Amino acid sequence: MSLVIELLDYFGIVVFAVSGALAAARARMDVVGFALLGVVTGIGGGSVRDLLLGRLPVFWIEQPQYIVLCVVASLVTFVSVPIIASRLRLLLWADAVGLAVFAVLGAQTALNADAPLIIAALLGVVSATFGGLIRDIICRETPLILLKEIYVTAALVGALLYVSLIEFEVDAMTAMLAGCGVTFAVRGLALVYSLSLPAFVHPNDRAGGAGPTPRKLEDVVK
Amino acid sequence: MSLVIELLDYFGIVVFAVSGALAAARARMDVVGFALLGVVTGIGGGSVRDLLLGRLPVFWIEQPQYIVLCVVASLVTFVSVPIIASRLRLLLWADAVGLAVFAVLGAQTALNADAPLIIAALLGVVSATFGGLIRDIICRETPLILLKEIYVTAALVGALLYVSLIEFEVDAMTAMLAGCGVTFAVRGLALVYSLSLPAFVHPNDRAGGAGPTPRKLEDVVK
Amino acid sequence: MSLVIELLDYFGIVVFAVSGALAAARARMDVVGFALLGVVTGIGGGSVRDLLLGRLPVFWIEQPQYIVLCVVASLVTFVSVPIIASRLRLLLWADAVGLAVFAVLGAQTALNADAPLIIAALLGVVSATFGGLIRDIICRETPLILLKEIYVTAALVGALLYVSLIEFEVDAMTAMLAGCGVTFAVRGLALVYSLSLPAFVHPNDRAGGAGPTPRKLEDVVK
Repeated sequence: MSLVIELLDYFGIVVFAVSGALAAARARMDVVGFALLGVVTGIGGGSVRDLLLGRLPVFWIEQPQYIVLCVVASLVTFVSVPIIASRLRLLLWADAVGLAVFAVLGAQTALNADAPLIIAALLGVVSATFGGLIRDIICRETPLILLKEIYVTAALVGALLYVSLIEFEVDAMTAMLAGCGVTFAVRGLALVYSLSLPAFVHPNDRAGGAGPTPRKLEDVVK
Repeated sequence: MSLVIELLDYFGIVVFAVSGALAAARARMDVVGFALLGVVTGIGGGSVRDLLLGRLPVFWIEQPQYIVLCVVASLVTFVSVPIIASRLRLLLWADAVGLAVFAVLGAQTALNADAPLIIAALLGVVSATFGGLIRDIICRETPLILLKEIYVTAALVGALLYVSLIEFEVDAMTAMLAGCGVTFAVRGLALVYSLSLPAFVHPNDRAGGAGPTPRKLEDVVK
Repeated sequence: MSLVIELLDYFGIVVFAVSGALAAARARMDVVGFALLGVVTGIGGGSVRDLLLGRLPVFWIEQPQYIVLCVVASLVTFVSVPIIASRLRLLLWADAVGLAVFAVLGAQTALNADAPLIIAALLGVVSATFGGLIRDIICRETPLILLKEIYVTAALVGALLYVSLIEFEVDAMTAMLAGCGVTFAVRGLALVYSLSLPAFVHPNDRAGGAGPTPRKLEDVVK
């Protein structure tokens, strides 16, 4: 069963690397830029988690297969952007799987490093979302966490559920499935019904013209 | 007396978290966005300091009260932005206290980790200003360090004074009070008299139209 | 001969610090802003490398001469921007030397910390390019890695050559000279002939109007 987790981990890395390469496509970068942005997006969240925890060197330094995977995914994207771009909906759902897997695996890694429950959940969110955040900062796009659409929230809910179940000594595999499942379900419902939490509305905002228009995830993966 | 320092430390964290939440308000984020940006701004500077020093895991991982404090401050801000926004001047002065406390405590932490004097002063500046820098980068606002108004300079002067006094074996509490006091005084004078250091003027700049208009801190905390 | 390497290392730091100070000039910052941006650009790449490897505290904390050098370079730039700005071509070539030195020394540092070959080459690229990336993010300029002009690629080719030669047990000094030489040559050819790798072209791009216009390095160092 740990093979399944390992495969899901690789799957999440690949999905995130593809989203980085697609950002490189929007910026009309060359092939080296695709690879660099794919690598940074694929391993960025896990790297920040490892840095904060002091698990050094970071995970991919002794496991170069992660870098190789990101580079391959980026190169494949470079030669097939039109094909991928016509399957945006599919990519959004794949991204939801990556989000779910990393939120739980990131929290698990933090618990294994003796982090308190709430910190572990936070580091799960960091693992799942900071790769994309770094991608957006480098490409000068509006960061995902500014999205009104539910994204960070899904990772937070799943990671909190996972650490809570572990605290109540629920079986590890059950807790993992529940955490992943809930993250995926919340994110999936947001995708299907375009759900969002109520955003802050300033008293001065006029009706219908409140603040900057948020970027939707659909724009991010095209 | 170390209780006073601990309380000032918490006070600084809260002030910075509120400034992060106010940036979230400007970006019209949802409540999770408020919390995430409040946390990142509140603990960002100290986290970068700990990373560079190798004091890992970073300070808040084993002391989750810091995260809880940032989240609470962000949520309170979420429901009370208009009230806070009408007390901008007060927040600017509170921010000056946070700047003073973190510049000195950051330098002290670095000295305790055996950093050389000049490095300790620099890490004090990092502790005091990098949380806000990360906030501005995520929100795509002009970073504070681009402000012409004296801000980084106040932290630098106070941190340098503190490490110098420690080097000359002045009593620790006296050094701390002097460092905090000078940072707060310099920043306060800048607030009252809108002081700034002379900025670089390119020979090609026309009179009165020199380069990009800097953002003032008043814009940052509203 | 290790003296030559040390001098080249200092030379690279100074060149990168100057490029940071010139970015501060474009943003019309004050003298403290020049120093801060010079420091961040000069030591940023090596700091990220050390963080990822877990070589903590980072290199400049116990060797404050690096910080002093960056500050001095920034202050000299502050009072002599017009002179430097009239020697842009020279600075571009100096930057190419810095790129070559850091790509190889960064890879060497990673090999000494037992990183696998491909990871060592990647960390060489990080050492050589991430200081400039952080500079661009802080100053809100288009990051260098978005440049179509060959830049990251030159560092990558040289770092890969260096680690390959070390793997085949070539003499350390020969490998270093070859890695530096190839990086410098590739970057130099790109400078002389304005070479670039083919960038991604979206099918929807019109002829002659493909995507955002990339920033050239000439804009970065003026």
